[in-house]
Amino acid sequence: MTTTLVTNIGSLVTNDPALGEGPLGLVEDAAVVMDGDRVTWVGPAAKAPAADAAYDAGGRALIPGFVDSHSHLVFAGDRTQEFNARMSGRSYTAGGIRTTVAATRSATDAQLEANLVRHLHEARRQGTTTFETKSGYGLTVEDEARALRIAAAHTDEVTYLGAHIVSPDYAEDPAAYVDLVTGEMLTACAPYARWVDVFCEKGAFDGDQARAILTAGKAAGLIPRIHANQLSFGPGVQLGVELGAASADHCTHLTDADVDALANSETVATLLPGAEFSTRAQWPDARRLLDAGATVALSTDCNPGSSYTSSMPFCIALAVRDMGMTPDEALWSATAGGARALRRTDIGALTPGARADLVLLDAPSHVHLAYRPGVPLVHAVWQRGERVV
Amino acid sequence: MTTTLVTNIGSLVTNDPALGEGPLGLVEDAAVVMDGDRVTWVGPAAKAPAADAAYDAGGRALIPGFVDSHSHLVFAGDRTQEFNARMSGRSYTAGGIRTTVAATRSATDAQLEANLVRHLHEARRQGTTTFETKSGYGLTVEDEARALRIAAAHTDEVTYLGAHIVSPDYAEDPAAYVDLVTGEMLTACAPYARWVDVFCEKGAFDGDQARAILTAGKAAGLIPRIHANQLSFGPGVQLGVELGAASADHCTHLTDADVDALANSETVATLLPGAEFSTRAQWPDARRLLDAGATVALSTDCNPGSSYTSSMPFCIALAVRDMGMTPDEALWSATAGGARALRRTDIGALTPGARADLVLLDAPSHVHLAYRPGVPLVHAVWQRGERVV
Repeated sequence: MTTTLVTNIGSLVTNDPALGEGPLGLVEDAAVVMDGDRVTWVGPAAKAPAADAAYDAGGRALIPGFVDSHSHLVFAGDRTQEFNARMSGRSYTAGGIRTTVAATRSATDAQLEANLVRHLHEARRQGTTTFETKSGYGLTVEDEARALRIAAAHTDEVTYLGAHIVSPDYAEDPAAYVDLVTGEMLTACAPYARWVDVFCEKGAFDGDQARAILTAGKAAGLIPRIHANQLSFGPGVQLGVELGAASADHCTHLTDADVDALANSETVATLLPGAEFSTRAQWPDARRLLDAGATVALSTDCNPGSSYTSSMPFCIALAVRDMGMTPDEALWSATAGGARALRRTDIGALTPGARADLVLLDAPSHVHLAYRPGVPLVHAVWQRGERVV
Repeated sequence: MTTTLVTNIGSLVTNDPALGEGPLGLVEDAAVVMDGDRVTWVGPAAKAPAADAAYDAGGRALIPGFVDSHSHLVFAGDRTQEFNARMSGRSYTAGGIRTTVAATRSATDAQLEANLVRHLHEARRQGTTTFETKSGYGLTVEDEARALRIAAAHTDEVTYLGAHIVSPDYAEDPAAYVDLVTGEMLTACAPYARWVDVFCEKGAFDGDQARAILTAGKAAGLIPRIHANQLSFGPGVQLGVELGAASADHCTHLTDADVDALANSETVATLLPGAEFSTRAQWPDARRLLDAGATVALSTDCNPGSSYTSSMPFCIALAVRDMGMTPDEALWSATAGGARALRRTDIGALTPGARADLVLLDAPSHVHLAYRPGVPLVHAVWQRGERVV
């Protein structure tokens, strides 16, 4: 194995308070040593050990790779016309998610995989080194299993979301669709997935249905996560906490009891500002959650309908501008927070033993991700120790 | 001269209604021919003439290069700490613009030029092919002239902004600073500049001072533009219209009379959403201006204090989300609108005879600039016919 010393780092975010200043464990004039796919040493450059190879970071800031813990990337087609109509004040009567379901079902495996890979590469160029992705645009046993099989070839963080909406094929009998999702579809999908998810919302699945779906998923060995309280108040967040969900995602409409439930649990509140941006919706209140003591993650929700961004830096800038997060908190939530939401301890931090997922910024500080909104600042990316950007 | 045919363009924005559909003059399945630094032909690919060389656009969308008609790029240092404090709710007593003035005065010519070039390249990678930039961080005769001389080596669109704020050296005698700006400083600066500008605002320059500054600039052969109505209601917009300013910039706080004045003049309303984003300020109302018949441009206002973004795509996404513009209107304002604000007829459109400033997007449509916020979508850039990205 060859060791590599990354030196002349202007500012290093370790996300370990024991290794540096503040909650981000910031180290100035720092260095990092990688050995194979792992970080083996971090600290002040002046104290760095020798290594086989060296990389001069040129005074740039180094941060852990972004952990995007919520995306929907197995799909075909796009919804440009729908977006354009919404943003131009024109009515548009096409089918929303159903449009993407139809396009996805019609696509070949190769087309779906190529589209997934294209988006993954795009995200990687923007500093994302771990991503979760979901099914949910197939809504038949075969199409959901296919989506998860394709996803599983590209990430360990695969989520079964047969319960994205009630399949149009079951519009007259939603209960039968819940039976399918908790029965034959689950059996076909579970081998490819780590997580089970449900869109708990008016017009999608109510609390009882969501409970049945997550409970069945747990019985099949999957860990729950939940789309909760996005468009309206509802039972999602508290159901997720009760069932031990790793994350409750969206959290836009929360009662005090919802906030308390999150603050007193291991369930992470994953906020997805791209969705509120692209639908002109109310922002989730990150400040309220943080002040209550909840753990907050930031993710893209990348999907062709409500949030077609793959940019974690963009989400950071929005979280700082509109959700009451400080630049430090937003960076933590986009890295360590995402790792928590995926129950991972090997990513989201740059500490000895962590996976060598590193992002070097064309900036002297991670604060520039919010200070320079929209500007592509990713200079280099290492994934598992390999330089990929 | 070698002609180049760009073919297999999925969707082409010409900004000429005579050449295609709607105000953007959209052509599907299009081609463009360049000869040297000019466009010589645009139309359906099936009718394209022969050319010496060919470039396959791969079905991507082609748009005119962005015209960023408002930036402040001759500066040194940054203001990360000030931004971080503002966004973290901490008080910060440093000097705002004065911090940048001190850093700029201390920098060498080479440092200022290197910083300018770094930002220009960054903007170009994001599709900006024409940029205006200003002095305003020197505030002495020598430092203002130096800034303009450096800028003039890199763009034709140079703006004398000695009247950015009253120089700290004249804090006790602002009238004497106006005399300097309209006298010796103007004489030293006019040879390098095309435009004269003033920050007309409480705490900067009032209506009478702004009138004196723009009038003196006109007498020296410069064309006026004005920072108007950014932080509060005031005389700036109507003064600009009265004096024949090419553009009134910011336009955040407008009375009905201000809107009428803009709508019944050749003065462009240049909106700068990066500033409102980065200072959490009220958005300018583009819809109101457009509905009244005013011409609207979009620009970055790139500067290290209030809007440190160089991204025209980011400004488009904000304008669509928060300022009531349609994706088509925002694209027009970021290209043709900027050209109007600079009184240029050779840029901002892709028509026979126009400058060959082309941006190819990793997207099938220009709508993706708003639909995919934060995602770097620029695939290739030609500036004056030369491939630069």
